[in-house]
Amino acid sequence: MDKQGLGLIETRTMDVSKPGGLSLEHGGRLDPVTLAYETYGKLNRERTNAILIAHALTGDAHAAGFHPGAGKPGWWDAMIGPGKAFDTNKYFVVCSNILGGCKGSTGPSSVNLKTGKPYGLDFPLVSIHDMVDCQRLLADHLGIEKLLCVAGGSMGGMQVLSWMVRYPERIRSAIPISIGVKHSPQQIALNEVGRQAIMADPDWNSGDYYGGPPPARGLSLARMIGHITYMSDDSMKEKFGRQRKDGADPFKFTADFEVEGYLHYHGENFVKRFDANTYLYITKAMDNFEAVEGRALHESLRGIDVKVLAIAFKSDWLYPAYQTKEIARACKLAGIEATYCEIESTYGHDAFLLEIEEQTLLISHFLKKVYNGYEVMSDYAI
Amino acid sequence: MDKQGLGLIETRTMDVSKPGGLSLEHGGRLDPVTLAYETYGKLNRERTNAILIAHALTGDAHAAGFHPGAGKPGWWDAMIGPGKAFDTNKYFVVCSNILGGCKGSTGPSSVNLKTGKPYGLDFPLVSIHDMVDCQRLLADHLGIEKLLCVAGGSMGGMQVLSWMVRYPERIRSAIPISIGVKHSPQQIALNEVGRQAIMADPDWNSGDYYGGPPPARGLSLARMIGHITYMSDDSMKEKFGRQRKDGADPFKFTADFEVEGYLHYHGENFVKRFDANTYLYITKAMDNFEAVEGRALHESLRGIDVKVLAIAFKSDWLYPAYQTKEIARACKLAGIEATYCEIESTYGHDAFLLEIEEQTLLISHFLKKVYNGYEVMSDYAI
Repeated sequence: MDKQGLGLIETRTMDVSKPGGLSLEHGGRLDPVTLAYETYGKLNRERTNAILIAHALTGDAHAAGFHPGAGKPGWWDAMIGPGKAFDTNKYFVVCSNILGGCKGSTGPSSVNLKTGKPYGLDFPLVSIHDMVDCQRLLADHLGIEKLLCVAGGSMGGMQVLSWMVRYPERIRSAIPISIGVKHSPQQIALNEVGRQAIMADPDWNSGDYYGGPPPARGLSLARMIGHITYMSDDSMKEKFGRQRKDGADPFKFTADFEVEGYLHYHGENFVKRFDANTYLYITKAMDNFEAVEGRALHESLRGIDVKVLAIAFKSDWLYPAYQTKEIARACKLAGIEATYCEIESTYGHDAFLLEIEEQTLLISHFLKKVYNGYEVMSDYAI
Repeated sequence: MDKQGLGLIETRTMDVSKPGGLSLEHGGRLDPVTLAYETYGKLNRERTNAILIAHALTGDAHAAGFHPGAGKPGWWDAMIGPGKAFDTNKYFVVCSNILGGCKGSTGPSSVNLKTGKPYGLDFPLVSIHDMVDCQRLLADHLGIEKLLCVAGGSMGGMQVLSWMVRYPERIRSAIPISIGVKHSPQQIALNEVGRQAIMADPDWNSGDYYGGPPPARGLSLARMIGHITYMSDDSMKEKFGRQRKDGADPFKFTADFEVEGYLHYHGENFVKRFDANTYLYITKAMDNFEAVEGRALHESLRGIDVKVLAIAFKSDWLYPAYQTKEIARACKLAGIEATYCEIESTYGHDAFLLEIEEQTLLISHFLKKVYNGYEVMSDYAI
């Protein structure tokens, strides 16, 4: 069995709007709708080994392996590959990009066929449920009637929840990581300051900046705010302390602490790879998301046949562990087999990208049980 | 005794730069230096009942009572007055504004006598120690050789620490609230995104905006970020939930949740009462602050005769309780009488402004003991 990694990987696309365009939760239709995705490993003859990976706010379809010429692998490469948590020697792993994104899927920077120009703010509001509808159409296209598992952290976890409540008959198991049933006001507030930072940038120009300079300072600032929330008090102390930058500019308000320089660097880099309007649309989709509206989650889950592994991290303050625990509790109230694991980590919200060993243990064990049809279960914490 | 409140109060000013200007920690001199302050109650004949209150980042000298025509009292009116925690029937309470501020004291919006124009970025970097130097000169001016107590929360607590390490012979006791010995990288990072928001606003114009429009969007955004950090996950849930605003604008990215509207409202109001350059200078002073540099706090405190009451709040994540506890621990290591109290509260960092009853019990008891020369002490939590 290949344990050397996935090697070169190509992002593919498909049009999920045929026929007649894609209907959206908040109204309106989109046509065409391109969805970018990657696959790793092989679909078995029975088509029973497919796992869908859903990504977070600024992720993309490139979850594992290398793109030609790239020095870094996909964003969850440590988790996906031969012998890894999502073992491509056993499973066929699909990572889908999101509707509204800017990484090969249709979003506000795509050309509106009606005008011949990028949509900008003419792009309709999209929802997490819409993203999942696209993924379901992708599964159809790939000939997968029932996914072995849907997994994802952060906004990826929202997509997992959406699959659980909307298409439970299409999945055998679900792994929501570092996510809650809906955004708290603190989470909405943190997204809102990011959006305000973008919209306050004159280069944003009411979303009509394609062809001109993008709202770089605003988007960079939004990313800096985000970055703080992805780390923890402890992880920032470990990484930066109060270390001063070498050769700091003598200007009074230059970044002179290491932590400031780090945020600036990552903010500026982010602008090169992300579209500001997508940031607005996708954060809004997250804020608007409620796994179920108008009733309790456990009522919506009752009677479904989906096994659940919910994972959270102790130092995550953006999506505090209690929120993920609520999902597991709702599953149990609904009579679904659910395991809840709270992993000790100082990495904060980033832990779902960084705590590989513990997640690998949990996930590989869970998938094996589901795949083999065994019973899983009961709570445990690492 | 008057229990009716303080009534009308006037802010006074004095020049603390005479003779020869004020020397600054980071170099340079300022001349003149106006300091705004207020006083409540009466100084006794022995001049032994004076308490200095130091304020937080966006506070001012108006801590208690009413200004003529104002509908709201000073920012800590619930704590200062006849029969209150800082009982003006017994004590002479002084609240000093800060150097670098914009509320009557010399700061970047003040006129530079050399140019006849507001300083802007020609204003020198100021430090927390500089602010305390001004307060010491104010105490001199008021004829107070030894303060009964110095008290303050948040940045006010930094000033309290500065008094403890630099002028311990001038104080009998100290009450640092919701503060640590120095900023963590997370605290620096949060301030830095506020500064970046201001400096990204084209109206900031490198600090030279006086006479023109101020960088309103940037300053408002900085305040919004700050506001999130002053509350807690719980307090935001209690106050806003996921409530939608009535009659939200149909524009896609308008504030449509209550929490967003609240932040916008407070951001916009803040611009009317605060100077953006002051925000830059004062947050930088906080980030640069270390109670003592190059050695442990307890070594600097050894041998001083100051009684300490350190107060923190459990839900404060901006200045987590463990930081305030470190101050109390250093006091004990240094052999100083110190009480540490951690108050249950869901208000987050704002708790020092809102949890009146518990603080009143603790502080009035502590002050009474110090004033009467009794021994205080030993840890307790409410």
